[in-house]
Amino acid sequence: MSKNAITALFGQDLQVVNLGLESFGDTLSQLGTPVTSVEWKPPAGGDPELAVLLDRLEEAEASGKLNRAAANQEAVTRILKGKPTLVGIGIAKDTVPGMHKKLIMHAGPPVEWEDMAGPLRGAIIGGLIYEGLAKTPEEAEKLAASGEITFDPCHHHNAVGPMAGVTTASMPVWVMENSTFGNRAYCTLNEGLGKVLRYGANSKEVIDRLRWMEQELAPILKKALELHGPLDMKNLIAQVLQMGDEGHNRNRAGTSLFIREMAPYLVMLDEEKEKLAKVFRFMHENDHFFLNLTMPASKCTVDAAAGIEGSSLVYTMARNGTEFGIRLAGLPDRWFTGPASVVDGLYLPGFSADDAARDVGDSVITETCGIGGFAMAAAPAIVKFVGGSPADAVNFTRKMYEITLAENDTYQIPAMDFRGTPTGIDVVKVVEHGVLPAINTGIAHKDPGVGMVGAGLVKPPEKAFRDAFAAFAEKYT
Amino acid sequence: MSKNAITALFGQDLQVVNLGLESFGDTLSQLGTPVTSVEWKPPAGGDPELAVLLDRLEEAEASGKLNRAAANQEAVTRILKGKPTLVGIGIAKDTVPGMHKKLIMHAGPPVEWEDMAGPLRGAIIGGLIYEGLAKTPEEAEKLAASGEITFDPCHHHNAVGPMAGVTTASMPVWVMENSTFGNRAYCTLNEGLGKVLRYGANSKEVIDRLRWMEQELAPILKKALELHGPLDMKNLIAQVLQMGDEGHNRNRAGTSLFIREMAPYLVMLDEEKEKLAKVFRFMHENDHFFLNLTMPASKCTVDAAAGIEGSSLVYTMARNGTEFGIRLAGLPDRWFTGPASVVDGLYLPGFSADDAARDVGDSVITETCGIGGFAMAAAPAIVKFVGGSPADAVNFTRKMYEITLAENDTYQIPAMDFRGTPTGIDVVKVVEHGVLPAINTGIAHKDPGVGMVGAGLVKPPEKAFRDAFAAFAEKYT
Repeated sequence: MSKNAITALFGQDLQVVNLGLESFGDTLSQLGTPVTSVEWKPPAGGDPELAVLLDRLEEAEASGKLNRAAANQEAVTRILKGKPTLVGIGIAKDTVPGMHKKLIMHAGPPVEWEDMAGPLRGAIIGGLIYEGLAKTPEEAEKLAASGEITFDPCHHHNAVGPMAGVTTASMPVWVMENSTFGNRAYCTLNEGLGKVLRYGANSKEVIDRLRWMEQELAPILKKALELHGPLDMKNLIAQVLQMGDEGHNRNRAGTSLFIREMAPYLVMLDEEKEKLAKVFRFMHENDHFFLNLTMPASKCTVDAAAGIEGSSLVYTMARNGTEFGIRLAGLPDRWFTGPASVVDGLYLPGFSADDAARDVGDSVITETCGIGGFAMAAAPAIVKFVGGSPADAVNFTRKMYEITLAENDTYQIPAMDFRGTPTGIDVVKVVEHGVLPAINTGIAHKDPGVGMVGAGLVKPPEKAFRDAFAAFAEKYT
Repeated sequence: MSKNAITALFGQDLQVVNLGLESFGDTLSQLGTPVTSVEWKPPAGGDPELAVLLDRLEEAEASGKLNRAAANQEAVTRILKGKPTLVGIGIAKDTVPGMHKKLIMHAGPPVEWEDMAGPLRGAIIGGLIYEGLAKTPEEAEKLAASGEITFDPCHHHNAVGPMAGVTTASMPVWVMENSTFGNRAYCTLNEGLGKVLRYGANSKEVIDRLRWMEQELAPILKKALELHGPLDMKNLIAQVLQMGDEGHNRNRAGTSLFIREMAPYLVMLDEEKEKLAKVFRFMHENDHFFLNLTMPASKCTVDAAAGIEGSSLVYTMARNGTEFGIRLAGLPDRWFTGPASVVDGLYLPGFSADDAARDVGDSVITETCGIGGFAMAAAPAIVKFVGGSPADAVNFTRKMYEITLAENDTYQIPAMDFRGTPTGIDVVKVVEHGVLPAINTGIAHKDPGVGMVGAGLVKPPEKAFRDAFAAFAEKYT
């Protein structure tokens, strides 16, 4: 362009679309020229190594060596076809594959005792006392460090656990079945908020509650569920998204629908009425009761996609308080991790960010399945619990369409004209667009034995996604 | 402006704000000139008679003869301060002021048997059979026409009734108390959807259900409520607006919260468990159960504003299927009416607009209190029941701020950044802006004895508001 042509150009009424740095556009804006800025980032954040891998993937796809599109289509179709169904309650040691007295399951990717975060240690101490394997916290700590106890991720046993996720042999677990594919998932029953094992608390009050849950709550709910028959969780989750829940940190509608669904059966049991009243009160006083149902519902749904060759779908996200880890459908047995992040949130009275443990828990399985942080637009009132504004909630959901493979045909958001929630995270899209999954979560105290201190929003570590992407490209090109 | 000046003007870059007819602006738009159209209507729709009355009102206010602003402030403050509280269940004849065996209460303004619409007649026939005053529909019809039975609006007895609103002496009623001001309101218990008395159905199935409600449902709920103690309805309604209900035609969250609130007490009663299970099932299978609680809650709230001299607040809206009527706080005992409108809605399978009765019921008391159609933005999923789009739902709420006196400090809409619902209709604003209250409602079959055929949106007749406004101006200027 000659100098004259440029002068001529800037003499005209300009219609400017600005790519890249916003400041390019700002200069023109200040001169009164209307500028449309396009949010644009170089693929893979301009990282040359990742850009090379993206090219290699593209070549493999062009040459027919890899059919990632078909593999991902199959993976997300399995997720959309999944029908999570609550089929019963069992005791972990009789129900969960591989469970035994000296095994403690925990949230997130594998982690050794010496590397565990405060809430995880706190919960394990409580779990050992609850199991009668130790009498005091000191004894429990010694035992945990002795090598006599096996620690395994819940995810290695078809299970999920919120926050610390500690599950021991005697604990009752929900049994969820994906009735389309036949696979199952397990999860403990929700203990309530505040001083509870999953947030690392382990006082007598905590252990007594766990005992009551094992001896009264679970047997009563189990019998009521047997009278009721299998409960269609997919239908319930679809409904709660129309009632202001997002299925991870807001479960008020879900808990309500579960109570009304079970009430006619609970009342028919041959139980002392005081015991039934206590069961009703316990569920009524704990709006998170439904979380431990959405979690295994999501787990058995996404698990159906595990092992599909060539699929870059993220079928697991989980944190143990030290590391955040993911697994891909096409590399199903490998964890890719990064350091667990600090949560940005609201704190309970008397606590602040200084008290917070790092991000912990398997509950982020809900985001993997298209609800939770991905469905925040359905639950604007959640901002009172996790912070932010209702507009943020909508923006979180909108952003997630950029990194997902489908819109859920069952889980819909009324305020977005019944658009399906963004479902099925693609690690390639995450790396390509530099957009990380939106997650909302609870916050545990960083020290063992304290409990819950707040709730908020958290960004997972980019490293986990980059490493997973690199390993995927390595294997499939 | 000289011809040259005009030419010069149109030679410049125009910045146009268009008032009045949109077509003025369209012409410029087509020529490429940006036009901002302001939705403007002449006050009172250009009606010279109403414009004169508006002037007279203004003069009375300027001269100090009328302090409408202060009166309306007092009226809406009473509404905002009201605390509807569920205090019990009684039998109408022992509980509702003035009720007796030969009195039948109905929805809407006063109406005589010969002028009554099909669903109202159908419900009255059912009511007379239920009371044992007639054995067959024919006998009931003869009795109704004989002059032996007194018909009175529910509103004349501190009560409200959905759809036909028929309430007879033996029916159980909720007792709602405005705990701030001490006044009470009454309403029957909700029968469910489909073939039910309030939609004009009156078969044996309908009467048998009413009998069961009187003999089992109400006594059981009454005892549970006594164990529970007074129930804060204001708090519950605030919550359901955060859970996708608007409190008139969507009551899924409200019904759920009521069930879980009462369950621990219901289960403690000395009752056969089959009877308790039936009570739980009945509420569970009827998402409108909560409507008959939001109605008296709204009624006892707005009633506290009745009789405030100089207030142009609309404290009653109600329809009897023939006429739509309103009452003003400053003219508390006079009804102003217009013909009941045709509802624009969605129909149940097998029915169409040809089957529809005209607008009927006291349920529009919810809109008078800042919920229902006024809170539709909180309940985007309601469009599946009443028609329209989620965007319409938001627009209905936005529009209502133009004709209301306050934003509710307790009833808030999360998706609108927790803005309070538009509360307290001012008849002067309605007439001035030509904006009618947004109402969503059920649709009854036009013939007696059939029942529900659909649900939708309805515009009240402008006449009722104009007449009320004129009478107000007459009295206060």
